[in-house]
Amino acid sequence: MSDALELYGANTGNSLRAAIALEEAAIAYTARRLDLRAREHDDPVYLALNPTGKVPTLVDHAYDPAQVINQSNAIIQYADARAPGRLSPATPGPERMQVFDRYFFFVTDVIAPSHAAFFLRQSGLDKAADAMDERVINHMLFAESFLTETFMAGAQFSMADISAFTIITAFRDRLDWKQLPRLSRWYHSVEARPAVQRGLNAFRET
Amino acid sequence: MSDALELYGANTGNSLRAAIALEEAAIAYTARRLDLRAREHDDPVYLALNPTGKVPTLVDHAYDPAQVINQSNAIIQYADARAPGRLSPATPGPERMQVFDRYFFFVTDVIAPSHAAFFLRQSGLDKAADAMDERVINHMLFAESFLTETFMAGAQFSMADISAFTIITAFRDRLDWKQLPRLSRWYHSVEARPAVQRGLNAFRET
Ligand SMILES: N[C@@H](CCC(=O)N[C@@H](CS)C(=O)NCC(=O)O)C(=O)O
Ligand SMILES: N[C@@H](CCC(=O)N[C@@H](CS)C(=O)NCC(=O)O)C(=O)O
Repeated sequence: MSDALELYGANTGNSLRAAIALEEAAIAYTARRLDLRAREHDDPVYLALNPTGKVPTLVDHAYDPAQVINQSNAIIQYADARAPGRLSPATPGPERMQVFDRYFFFVTDVIAPSHAAFFLRQSGLDKAADAMDERVINHMLFAESFLTETFMAGAQFSMADISAFTIITAFRDRLDWKQLPRLSRWYHSVEARPAVQRGLNAFRET
Repeated sequence: MSDALELYGANTGNSLRAAIALEEAAIAYTARRLDLRAREHDDPVYLALNPTGKVPTLVDHAYDPAQVINQSNAIIQYADARAPGRLSPATPGPERMQVFDRYFFFVTDVIAPSHAAFFLRQSGLDKAADAMDERVINHMLFAESFLTETFMAGAQFSMADISAFTIITAFRDRLDWKQLPRLSRWYHSVEARPAVQRGLNAFRET
Protein backbone atom coordinates (compact mmCIF):
# COMPACT_ATOMS: atom_id res chain seq x y z
CA MET A 1 0.00 0.00 0.00
CA SER A 2 1.07 3.52 -0.67
CA ASP A 3 -0.03 6.83 0.84
CA ALA A 4 1.07 8.52 -2.37
CA LEU A 5 -2.19 7.30 -3.93
CA GLU A 6 -5.46 7.32 -2.02
CA LEU A 7 -8.77 5.88 -3.17
CA TYR A 8 -11.76 7.16 -1.21
CA GLY A 9 -14.77 4.93 -1.55
CA ALA A 10 -17.45 2.73 -0.06
CA ASN A 11 -18.90 -0.72 -0.66
CA THR A 12 -20.68 0.36 -3.87
CA GLY A 13 -20.27 -0.74 -7.48
CA ASN A 14 -18.52 2.43 -8.65
CA SER A 15 -15.94 2.32 -5.86
CA LEU A 16 -15.33 -1.40 -6.27
CA ARG A 17 -14.79 -1.09 -10.03
CA ALA A 18 -12.17 1.60 -9.39
CA ALA A 19 -10.46 -0.56 -6.75
CA ILE A 20 -10.46 -3.63 -9.01
CA ALA A 21 -8.93 -1.57 -11.85
CA LEU A 22 -6.07 -0.40 -9.60
CA GLU A 23 -5.54 -3.96 -8.34
CA GLU A 24 -5.55 -5.48 -11.84
CA ALA A 25 -3.13 -2.75 -12.96
CA ALA A 26 -0.89 -3.61 -9.95
CA ILE A 27 -0.86 0.04 -8.82
CA ALA A 28 -0.29 0.47 -5.06
CA TYR A 29 -2.88 2.62 -3.25
CA THR A 30 -4.41 3.20 0.16
CA ALA A 31 -8.15 2.59 0.42
CA ARG A 32 -9.96 5.23 2.48
CA ARG A 33 -13.40 3.95 3.41
CA LEU A 34 -16.20 6.50 3.80
CA ASP A 35 -19.25 5.60 5.86
CA LEU A 36 -22.09 6.72 3.59
CA ARG A 37 -24.72 6.08 6.29
CA ALA A 38 -22.84 8.46 8.60
CA ARG A 39 -22.76 10.81 5.56
CA GLU A 40 -18.98 11.11 5.65
CA HIS A 41 -19.19 12.04 1.96
CA ASP A 42 -20.87 15.31 3.04
CA ASP A 43 -17.88 16.28 5.18
CA PRO A 44 -16.38 19.59 3.96
CA VAL A 45 -12.92 18.03 3.72
CA TYR A 46 -14.28 15.39 1.34
CA LEU A 47 -16.44 17.88 -0.54
CA ALA A 48 -13.29 19.89 -1.25
CA LEU A 49 -11.98 16.81 -3.09
CA ASN A 50 -15.30 15.89 -4.71
CA PRO A 51 -17.85 18.75 -4.88
CA THR A 52 -20.59 16.35 -6.04
CA GLY A 53 -20.26 14.51 -2.71
CA LYS A 54 -20.12 11.11 -4.39
CA VAL A 55 -17.71 8.21 -4.23
CA PRO A 56 -15.15 7.23 -5.42
CA THR A 57 -12.37 9.83 -5.54
CA LEU A 58 -8.73 9.14 -6.37
CA VAL A 59 -5.99 11.45 -5.06
CA ASP A 60 -2.51 11.12 -6.54
CA HIS A 61 0.04 12.93 -4.35
CA ALA A 62 2.82 12.33 -6.88
CA TYR A 63 1.70 15.63 -8.42
CA ASP A 64 1.76 19.07 -6.84
CA PRO A 65 -1.00 20.12 -6.56
CA ALA A 66 -2.28 16.59 -6.04
CA GLN A 67 -4.18 15.13 -8.97
CA VAL A 68 -7.83 14.48 -8.03
CA ILE A 69 -10.12 12.23 -10.10
CA ASN A 70 -13.82 11.94 -9.25
CA GLN A 71 -15.34 9.66 -11.84
CA SER A 72 -14.95 5.91 -11.37
CA ASN A 73 -14.48 5.48 -15.12
CA ALA A 74 -11.80 8.16 -15.27
CA ILE A 75 -10.00 6.23 -12.50
CA ILE A 76 -10.16 3.13 -14.72
CA GLN A 77 -8.63 5.18 -17.57
CA TYR A 78 -5.95 6.45 -15.17
CA ALA A 79 -5.06 2.85 -14.27
CA ASP A 80 -5.01 1.88 -17.96
CA ALA A 81 -2.67 4.77 -18.80
CA ARG A 82 -0.29 3.94 -15.94
CA ALA A 83 -0.12 0.21 -16.66
CA PRO A 84 -0.31 -0.23 -20.45
CA GLY A 85 -1.52 -3.66 -21.55
CA ARG A 86 -3.14 -4.74 -18.29
CA LEU A 87 -6.63 -3.28 -18.77
CA SER A 88 -6.60 -3.02 -22.57
CA PRO A 89 -4.23 -3.92 -25.43
CA ALA A 90 -1.46 -1.30 -25.37
CA THR A 91 -1.19 -1.12 -29.18
CA PRO A 92 -3.69 1.12 -31.02
CA GLY A 93 -6.01 -0.70 -33.42
CA PRO A 94 -9.12 -2.90 -33.63
CA GLU A 95 -8.35 -5.09 -30.61
CA ARG A 96 -7.98 -2.07 -28.35
CA MET A 97 -11.14 -0.50 -29.81
CA GLN A 98 -13.11 -3.69 -29.26
CA VAL A 99 -12.29 -3.35 -25.56
CA PHE A 100 -13.62 0.22 -25.52
CA ASP A 101 -16.74 -0.77 -27.46
CA ARG A 102 -17.68 -3.49 -24.97
CA TYR A 103 -16.56 -1.41 -21.97
CA PHE A 104 -18.87 1.45 -22.98
CA PHE A 105 -21.73 -0.97 -23.60
CA PHE A 106 -21.60 -1.93 -19.93
CA VAL A 107 -20.95 1.65 -18.72
CA THR A 108 -23.81 3.29 -20.64
CA ASP A 109 -26.33 0.53 -21.40
CA VAL A 110 -26.11 -1.64 -18.27
CA ILE A 111 -24.59 0.21 -15.30
CA ALA A 112 -26.16 3.60 -16.08
CA PRO A 113 -29.77 2.32 -16.26
CA SER A 114 -29.16 0.32 -13.07
CA HIS A 115 -28.17 3.59 -11.34
CA ALA A 116 -31.35 5.14 -12.73
CA ALA A 117 -33.36 2.26 -11.26
CA PHE A 118 -31.67 2.76 -7.89
CA PHE A 119 -32.58 6.46 -7.93
CA LEU A 120 -36.18 5.71 -8.95
CA ARG A 121 -36.58 3.19 -6.14
CA GLN A 122 -35.14 5.65 -3.61
CA SER A 123 -37.74 8.14 -4.88
CA GLY A 124 -40.59 5.69 -4.28
CA LEU A 125 -41.18 5.16 -8.01
CA ASP A 126 -41.16 1.38 -7.80
CA LYS A 127 -42.97 0.60 -11.04
CA ALA A 128 -40.50 2.71 -13.02
CA ALA A 129 -37.60 1.15 -11.11
CA ASP A 130 -38.86 -2.32 -12.04
CA ALA A 131 -39.09 -1.31 -15.72
CA MET A 132 -35.51 0.01 -15.62
CA ASP A 133 -34.22 -3.15 -13.93
CA GLU A 134 -35.88 -5.23 -16.63
CA ARG A 135 -34.09 -3.12 -19.23
CA VAL A 136 -30.77 -3.68 -17.41
CA ILE A 137 -31.29 -7.45 -17.44
CA ASN A 138 -32.24 -7.46 -21.13
CA HIS A 139 -29.05 -5.63 -22.00
CA MET A 140 -27.00 -7.87 -19.72
CA LEU A 141 -28.09 -10.92 -21.70
CA PHE A 142 -26.15 -9.56 -24.69
CA ALA A 143 -23.01 -10.42 -22.77
CA GLU A 144 -23.57 -14.08 -23.62
CA SER A 145 -23.02 -13.22 -27.31
CA PHE A 146 -19.88 -11.17 -26.51
CA LEU A 147 -18.17 -14.22 -25.01
CA THR A 148 -16.82 -15.85 -28.17
CA GLU A 149 -13.41 -15.93 -26.46
CA THR A 150 -12.46 -16.12 -22.80
CA PHE A 151 -13.22 -12.52 -21.86
CA MET A 152 -15.78 -9.82 -22.72
CA ALA A 153 -13.66 -8.27 -25.46
CA GLY A 154 -11.40 -11.09 -26.58
CA ALA A 155 -8.72 -13.41 -25.29
CA GLN A 156 -7.35 -10.93 -22.72
CA PHE A 157 -8.88 -9.70 -19.48
CA SER A 158 -9.75 -5.98 -19.84
CA MET A 159 -11.66 -3.02 -18.47
CA ALA A 160 -14.72 -4.48 -20.24
CA ASP A 161 -14.64 -7.36 -17.75
CA ILE A 162 -14.24 -4.95 -14.85
CA SER A 163 -17.26 -2.91 -15.93
CA ALA A 164 -19.32 -6.06 -16.41
CA PHE A 165 -18.39 -7.96 -13.28
CA THR A 166 -19.76 -5.94 -10.35
CA ILE A 167 -23.04 -5.10 -12.10
CA ILE A 168 -23.63 -8.73 -13.05
CA THR A 169 -22.86 -9.64 -9.43
CA ALA A 170 -25.60 -7.24 -8.30
CA PHE A 171 -28.12 -9.01 -10.55
CA ARG A 172 -26.75 -12.51 -9.97
CA ASP A 173 -29.88 -13.86 -8.28
CA ARG A 174 -32.13 -12.62 -11.08
CA LEU A 175 -30.39 -14.21 -14.06
CA ASP A 176 -31.37 -17.57 -15.51
CA TRP A 177 -27.84 -18.99 -15.38
CA LYS A 178 -28.78 -22.28 -17.03
CA GLN A 179 -29.50 -20.32 -20.22
CA LEU A 180 -26.15 -18.51 -19.94
CA PRO A 181 -23.36 -21.11 -20.11
CA ARG A 182 -20.68 -18.74 -21.39
CA LEU A 183 -21.55 -16.00 -18.93
CA SER A 184 -21.52 -18.55 -16.14
CA ARG A 185 -18.02 -19.79 -17.03
CA TRP A 186 -16.80 -16.20 -17.48
CA TYR A 187 -18.28 -15.11 -14.15
CA HIS A 188 -16.49 -17.79 -12.17
CA SER A 189 -13.17 -17.13 -13.92
CA VAL A 190 -13.33 -13.38 -13.16
CA GLU A 191 -14.49 -13.97 -9.58
CA ALA A 192 -11.48 -16.25 -9.02
CA ARG A 193 -8.91 -13.60 -9.95
CA PRO A 194 -6.88 -12.56 -6.88
CA ALA A 195 -6.85 -8.89 -7.96
CA VAL A 196 -10.64 -8.90 -8.31
CA GLN A 197 -10.98 -10.39 -4.82
CA ARG A 198 -8.63 -7.77 -3.37
CA GLY A 199 -10.61 -5.00 -5.06
CA LEU A 200 -13.92 -6.38 -3.81
CA ASN A 201 -12.58 -6.31 -0.26
CA ALA A 202 -11.01 -2.84 -0.45
CA PHE A 203 -13.87 -1.09 1.37
CA ARG A 204 -15.19 -3.87 3.54
CA GLU A 205 -16.20 -2.85 7.06
CA THR A 206 -13.66 -4.19 9.52
CA MET B 1 -15.54 12.47 -47.59
CA SER B 2 -14.20 8.97 -47.65
CA ASP B 3 -15.89 5.63 -48.25
CA ALA B 4 -13.10 3.98 -46.31
CA LEU B 5 -14.86 5.15 -43.12
CA GLU B 6 -18.64 5.05 -42.77
CA LEU B 7 -20.67 6.43 -39.87
CA TYR B 8 -24.21 5.08 -39.72
CA GLY B 9 -26.51 7.27 -37.67
CA ALA B 10 -29.60 9.41 -37.29
CA ASN B 11 -30.48 12.81 -35.92
CA THR B 12 -30.02 11.73 -32.29
CA GLY B 13 -27.60 12.85 -29.60
CA ASN B 14 -25.43 9.73 -29.69
CA SER B 15 -24.98 9.86 -33.47
CA LEU B 16 -24.32 13.60 -33.47
CA ARG B 17 -21.66 13.33 -30.75
CA ALA B 18 -19.86 10.68 -32.82
CA ALA B 19 -20.07 12.86 -35.95
CA ILE B 20 -18.81 15.95 -34.08
CA ALA B 21 -15.87 13.93 -32.71
CA LEU B 22 -14.84 12.80 -36.22
CA GLU B 23 -15.22 16.37 -37.53
CA GLU B 24 -13.21 17.90 -34.68
CA ALA B 25 -10.53 15.25 -35.20
CA ALA B 26 -10.51 16.11 -38.94
CA ILE B 27 -11.08 12.48 -39.91
CA ALA B 28 -12.81 12.02 -43.28
CA TYR B 29 -15.92 9.81 -43.24
CA THR B 30 -19.15 9.18 -45.11
CA ALA B 31 -22.35 9.72 -43.12
CA ARG B 32 -24.96 7.03 -43.76
CA ARG B 33 -28.34 8.24 -42.48
CA LEU B 34 -30.77 5.63 -41.16
CA ASP B 35 -34.46 6.48 -41.03
CA LEU B 36 -35.41 5.29 -37.54
CA ARG B 37 -39.13 5.88 -38.18
CA ALA B 38 -38.92 3.51 -41.15
CA ARG B 39 -37.02 1.18 -38.76
CA GLU B 40 -34.01 0.96 -41.07
CA HIS B 41 -31.99 0.06 -37.97
CA ASP B 42 -33.93 -3.24 -37.87
CA ASP B 43 -32.74 -4.18 -41.34
CA PRO B 44 -30.76 -7.46 -41.27
CA VAL B 45 -27.84 -5.83 -43.10
CA TYR B 46 -27.59 -3.19 -40.36
CA LEU B 47 -28.20 -5.73 -37.57
CA ALA B 48 -25.19 -7.66 -38.87
CA LEU B 49 -23.11 -4.56 -38.14
CA ASN B 50 -24.86 -3.69 -34.86
CA PRO B 51 -26.76 -6.58 -33.25
CA THR B 52 -28.33 -4.23 -30.68
CA GLY B 53 -30.08 -2.40 -33.57
CA LYS B 54 -29.03 1.00 -32.26
CA VAL B 55 -27.23 3.94 -33.79
CA PRO B 56 -24.49 4.98 -34.32
CA THR B 57 -22.11 2.44 -35.87
CA LEU B 58 -18.69 3.20 -37.35
CA VAL B 59 -17.20 0.93 -40.02
CA ASP B 60 -13.51 1.33 -40.86
CA HIS B 61 -12.70 -0.44 -44.12
CA ALA B 62 -8.98 0.24 -43.70
CA TYR B 63 -8.92 -3.07 -41.82
CA ASP B 64 -9.72 -6.53 -43.16
CA PRO B 65 -12.10 -7.64 -41.80
CA ALA B 66 -13.52 -4.12 -41.45
CA GLN B 67 -13.36 -2.67 -37.93
CA VAL B 68 -16.88 -2.11 -36.54
CA ILE B 69 -17.56 0.12 -33.52
CA ASN B 70 -21.07 0.33 -32.04
CA GLN B 71 -20.82 2.58 -29.01
CA SER B 72 -20.87 6.34 -29.61
CA ASN B 73 -18.30 6.79 -26.85
CA ALA B 74 -15.98 4.17 -28.32
CA ILE B 75 -16.19 6.11 -31.60
CA ILE B 76 -15.08 9.22 -29.70
CA GLN B 77 -12.13 7.23 -28.30
CA TYR B 78 -11.34 5.99 -31.82
CA ALA B 79 -11.23 9.60 -33.05
CA ASP B 80 -9.04 10.60 -30.08
CA ALA B 81 -6.59 7.76 -30.79
CA ARG B 82 -6.35 8.62 -34.49
CA ALA B 83 -5.87 12.37 -33.98
CA PRO B 84 -3.82 12.84 -30.80
CA GLY B 85 -4.22 16.27 -29.19
CA ARG B 86 -7.48 17.28 -30.85
CA LEU B 87 -9.98 15.74 -28.44
CA SER B 88 -7.71 15.51 -25.38
CA PRO B 89 -4.13 16.47 -24.45
CA ALA B 90 -1.88 13.92 -26.13
CA THR B 91 0.59 13.76 -23.21
CA PRO B 92 -0.32 11.48 -20.27
CA GLY B 93 -0.83 13.28 -16.96
CA PRO B 94 -3.27 15.40 -14.95
CA GLU B 95 -4.47 17.58 -17.83
CA ARG B 96 -5.43 14.57 -19.89
CA MET B 97 -7.08 12.93 -16.86
CA GLN B 98 -9.08 16.09 -16.13
CA VAL B 99 -10.58 15.73 -19.61
CA PHE B 100 -11.61 12.14 -18.89
CA ASP B 101 -13.01 13.09 -15.48
CA ARG B 102 -15.30 15.76 -16.94
CA TYR B 103 -16.11 13.70 -20.02
CA PHE B 104 -17.32 10.79 -17.88
CA PHE B 105 -19.31 13.15 -15.68
CA PHE B 106 -21.38 14.09 -18.73
CA VAL B 107 -21.50 10.52 -20.10
CA THR B 108 -22.65 8.83 -16.89
CA ASP B 109 -24.30 11.55 -14.77
CA VAL B 110 -26.01 13.71 -17.42
CA ILE B 111 -26.48 11.86 -20.73
CA ALA B 112 -27.22 8.44 -19.20
CA PRO B 113 -30.06 9.66 -16.93
CA SER B 114 -31.48 11.64 -19.86
CA HIS B 115 -31.63 8.38 -21.86
CA ALA B 116 -33.35 6.79 -18.88
CA ALA B 117 -35.91 9.63 -18.88
CA PHE B 118 -36.50 9.13 -22.61
CA PHE B 119 -37.14 5.41 -22.07
CA LEU B 120 -39.48 6.09 -19.13
CA ARG B 121 -41.50 8.60 -21.15
CA GLN B 122 -41.75 6.15 -24.07
CA SER B 123 -43.07 3.61 -21.54
CA GLY B 124 -45.78 6.01 -20.34
CA LEU B 125 -44.09 6.54 -16.96
CA ASP B 126 -44.28 10.33 -17.11
CA LYS B 127 -43.87 11.09 -13.42
CA ALA B 128 -40.66 9.04 -13.27
CA ALA B 129 -39.45 10.64 -16.51
CA ASP B 130 -40.01 14.10 -14.99
CA ALA B 131 -38.02 13.10 -11.89
CA MET B 132 -35.15 11.86 -14.06
CA ASP B 133 -35.15 15.01 -16.17
CA GLU B 134 -34.96 17.09 -12.99
CA ARG B 135 -31.94 15.03 -11.96
CA VAL B 136 -30.33 15.64 -15.36
CA ILE B 137 -30.80 19.39 -15.02
CA ASN B 138 -29.42 19.42 -11.46
CA HIS B 139 -26.28 17.65 -12.65
CA MET B 140 -26.00 19.91 -15.68
CA LEU B 141 -25.79 22.96 -13.43
CA PHE B 142 -22.44 21.66 -12.15
CA ALA B 143 -21.04 22.58 -15.54
CA GLU B 144 -21.08 26.24 -14.50
CA SER B 145 -18.44 25.41 -11.84
CA PHE B 146 -16.33 23.43 -14.35
CA LEU B 147 -15.88 26.49 -16.54
CA THR B 148 -12.98 28.17 -14.77
CA GLU B 149 -11.22 28.30 -18.14
CA THR B 150 -12.59 28.49 -21.67
CA PHE B 151 -13.68 24.87 -22.01
CA MET B 152 -15.20 22.12 -19.82
CA ALA B 153 -11.85 20.62 -18.86
CA GLY B 154 -9.42 23.51 -19.25
CA ALA B 155 -8.07 25.87 -21.86
CA GLN B 156 -8.40 23.40 -24.76
CA PHE B 157 -11.52 22.12 -26.49
CA SER B 158 -11.94 18.39 -25.72
CA MET B 159 -14.22 15.38 -25.73
CA ALA B 160 -15.70 16.79 -22.50
CA ASP B 161 -17.15 19.65 -24.54
CA ILE B 162 -18.48 17.23 -27.13
CA SER B 163 -20.25 15.13 -24.51
CA ALA B 164 -21.70 18.27 -22.88
CA PHE B 165 -22.82 20.15 -25.95
CA THR B 166 -25.61 18.10 -27.53
CA ILE B 167 -27.21 17.18 -24.21
CA ILE B 168 -27.21 20.81 -23.06
CA THR B 169 -28.73 21.71 -26.43
CA ALA B 170 -31.57 19.26 -25.77
CA PHE B 171 -32.33 20.98 -22.44
CA ARG B 172 -31.64 24.51 -23.69
CA ASP B 173 -35.18 25.80 -23.20
CA ARG B 174 -35.36 24.54 -19.63
CA LEU B 175 -32.20 26.19 -18.24
CA ASP B 176 -32.21 29.54 -16.48
CA TRP B 177 -29.46 31.01 -18.66
CA LYS B 178 -29.32 34.32 -16.75
CA GLN B 179 -28.00 32.37 -13.76
CA LEU B 180 -25.41 30.62 -15.95
CA PRO B 181 -23.11 33.26 -17.42
CA ARG B 182 -20.13 30.94 -17.98
CA LEU B 183 -22.22 28.17 -19.47
CA SER B 184 -23.88 30.70 -21.72
CA ARG B 185 -20.56 32.01 -23.06
CA TRP B 186 -19.24 28.45 -23.44
CA TYR B 187 -22.35 27.30 -25.26
CA HIS B 188 -22.11 30.01 -27.90
CA SER B 189 -18.39 29.43 -28.42
CA VAL B 190 -18.89 25.68 -28.99
CA GLU B 191 -21.95 26.21 -31.18
CA ALA B 192 -19.89 28.55 -33.39
CA ARG B 193 -17.21 25.96 -34.16
CA PRO B 194 -17.33 24.94 -37.85
CA ALA B 195 -16.60 21.29 -37.04
CA VAL B 196 -19.45 21.22 -34.51
CA GLN B 197 -21.81 22.67 -37.13
CA ARG B 198 -20.71 20.10 -39.70
CA GLY B 199 -21.26 17.31 -37.19
CA LEU B 200 -24.72 18.61 -36.26
CA ASN B 201 -25.70 18.53 -39.93
CA ALA B 202 -24.25 15.10 -40.71
CA PHE B 203 -27.61 13.28 -40.50
CA ARG B 204 -30.00 16.03 -41.48
CA GLU B 205 -32.87 14.97 -43.73
CA THR B 206 -32.26 16.36 -47.17
N1 LIG C 1 -20.57 8.82 -12.27
C1 LIG C 1 -20.06 8.71 -10.93
C2 LIG C 1 -21.20 8.36 -10.00
C3 LIG C 1 -20.79 8.26 -8.56
C4 LIG C 1 -21.98 7.88 -7.68
O1 LIG C 1 -23.16 8.05 -8.05
N2 LIG C 1 -21.69 7.36 -6.45
C5 LIG C 1 -22.72 6.95 -5.53
C6 LIG C 1 -22.46 5.55 -5.01
S1 LIG C 1 -22.43 4.35 -6.34
C7 LIG C 1 -22.71 7.87 -4.33
O2 LIG C 1 -21.66 8.37 -3.95
N3 LIG C 1 -23.86 8.11 -3.68
C8 LIG C 1 -23.91 8.87 -2.48
C9 LIG C 1 -24.82 10.04 -2.58
O3 LIG C 1 -25.19 10.42 -3.70
O4 LIG C 1 -25.20 10.57 -1.52
C10 LIG C 1 -18.95 7.64 -10.94
O5 LIG C 1 -19.02 6.75 -11.79
O6 LIG C 1 -18.04 7.73 -10.14
N1 LIG D 1 -24.83 3.34 -25.60
C1 LIG D 1 -25.21 3.46 -27.00
C2 LIG D 1 -26.69 3.78 -27.09
C3 LIG D 1 -27.21 3.88 -28.49
C4 LIG D 1 -28.69 4.24 -28.51
O1 LIG D 1 -29.41 4.04 -27.52
N2 LIG D 1 -29.17 4.75 -29.67
C5 LIG D 1 -30.56 5.13 -29.82
C6 LIG D 1 -30.67 6.53 -30.38
S1 LIG D 1 -29.91 7.73 -29.31
C7 LIG D 1 -31.24 4.20 -30.82
O2 LIG D 1 -30.60 3.73 -31.74
N3 LIG D 1 -32.54 3.95 -30.67
C8 LIG D 1 -33.28 3.18 -31.61
C9 LIG D 1 -33.94 2.00 -30.98
O3 LIG D 1 -33.55 1.61 -29.86
O4 LIG D 1 -34.85 1.46 -31.61
C10 LIG D 1 -24.34 4.55 -27.63
O5 LIG D 1 -23.90 5.45 -26.89
O6 LIG D 1 -24.04 4.46 -28.82
